[in-house]
Amino acid sequence: MPAPSPHSRLSADGPVLDGIPEHGRVPRYYAVKVELLAVIEELGEGAALPTERELCERFEVSRATVRQAVGELVLEGRLSRRQGSGTYVAAPKLVQPLALVSCTEGLRGQGVRPGRTVITLERRPAGRALAADLRVTSDAEVWHLERVLLADDERIGLESTYLPVSRFPQLREVFDPRQSLHACLSEQLGVVFAGAEERVETVLATPREALLIGTNPALPMLLTHRVAWGPDGVPVERVRSLYRGDRLSFLTRLGR
Amino acid sequence: MPAPSPHSRLSADGPVLDGIPEHGRVPRYYAVKVELLAVIEELGEGAALPTERELCERFEVSRATVRQAVGELVLEGRLSRRQGSGTYVAAPKLVQPLALVSCTEGLRGQGVRPGRTVITLERRPAGRALAADLRVTSDAEVWHLERVLLADDERIGLESTYLPVSRFPQLREVFDPRQSLHACLSEQLGVVFAGAEERVETVLATPREALLIGTNPALPMLLTHRVAWGPDGVPVERVRSLYRGDRLSFLTRLGR
Repeated sequence: MPAPSPHSRLSADGPVLDGIPEHGRVPRYYAVKVELLAVIEELGEGAALPTERELCERFEVSRATVRQAVGELVLEGRLSRRQGSGTYVAAPKLVQPLALVSCTEGLRGQGVRPGRTVITLERRPAGRALAADLRVTSDAEVWHLERVLLADDERIGLESTYLPVSRFPQLREVFDPRQSLHACLSEQLGVVFAGAEERVETVLATPREALLIGTNPALPMLLTHRVAWGPDGVPVERVRSLYRGDRLSFLTRLGR
Repeated sequence: MPAPSPHSRLSADGPVLDGIPEHGRVPRYYAVKVELLAVIEELGEGAALPTERELCERFEVSRATVRQAVGELVLEGRLSRRQGSGTYVAAPKLVQPLALVSCTEGLRGQGVRPGRTVITLERRPAGRALAADLRVTSDAEVWHLERVLLADDERIGLESTYLPVSRFPQLREVFDPRQSLHACLSEQLGVVFAGAEERVETVLATPREALLIGTNPALPMLLTHRVAWGPDGVPVERVRSLYRGDRLSFLTRLGR
């Protein structure tokens, strides 16, 4: 079996070797996965993977074993499937900086053109939890802006932003929902962001989310919850962002 | 079908309702999952879930459908399985602050006792990628400290730390690997951390990792890569931490 490439999954070459259990048998699918990582490295981004049948012959394993190995590599974003045309070596995950005003604009630095498709712009009662986060009453109205996030026209996430209607009564008139919300808030509505708290976890996509983002249900996703406030400490917005776990990672810088 | 609880997965009650596709049929397993979230909320942490057979009767669905719904809730950390004794309502995910010196010590504030089990403490050549991250030569030796991370004796993660041997030649003599590495570095070896960069992504556990952490392979995990440096900007350590995605979330605070 060829050694896994040092750059297969990590920027450090040590831990990749840790895939092999010290006690017990290496599962066959996992051995195939390690071999496939070397194949992926060799082929390079955008190249087509050999067919399932060719891989079965090459590694002398069953179709089910190849499928499990390929399936995990797809979930992890190393390979991507294109409807009706096979499996390809995927591009590296995009890196989204966790910045004070976090948005897909951070992707420009990676040569990626961010975009958004509006799904919803509606007024609705805050409800208990949102009310607590935004420090409004439960029956106060909030704007709910829901958008699919794009990177070079590829759907990579789904974002719901909630803003108090009392503070931004004119939002629908002022804001073009295809544009950057933060640009509108700061340039047209004079909002200053002073701080934010953001929680990151991994969840599975719901069927609706999978439909909107155009991916498999049950794909591991990165979910962030954010509350951002102004210089007076009053919350300005509550954002829930769901990103494809196979296409995105987050970067944070601490200290100096 | 009872409405999903506002606190089922999010702190805001809006997005939970977004589980229902607007176009197309709601998959049966997903409808059961939404109903189970209400059951979970009602039962409360630590309570036993009714048996698979009872759930089949209650929701009038097949065993396979119940299994898919329960399986996703286990992967997401809402339910936990105990060998030979059924399925229980899990505790909420722990919140790990992404701090300059990030470690399980951050869990103390949540009433959780952090701990660690040493798997490896060894010297090894850095190799290309680690050498670049630590700014040493490829053949320079690094310490590799690998530990299982514990929260109240439950295994929640696996951490590999790499340090240049040239800078810390005496590490094995000075450091008790069951104690906090950062306490040893700062108190005994005079290290000052000035900044760090951390990347967060979601990956699947490898068989070895699953074995060490005591979880299912293919459980979505949160993986962080970190480089931390001193006041002179010279890298001090490179850390790879893998956390159970069903047990942990990260919190970051931006601005003020």
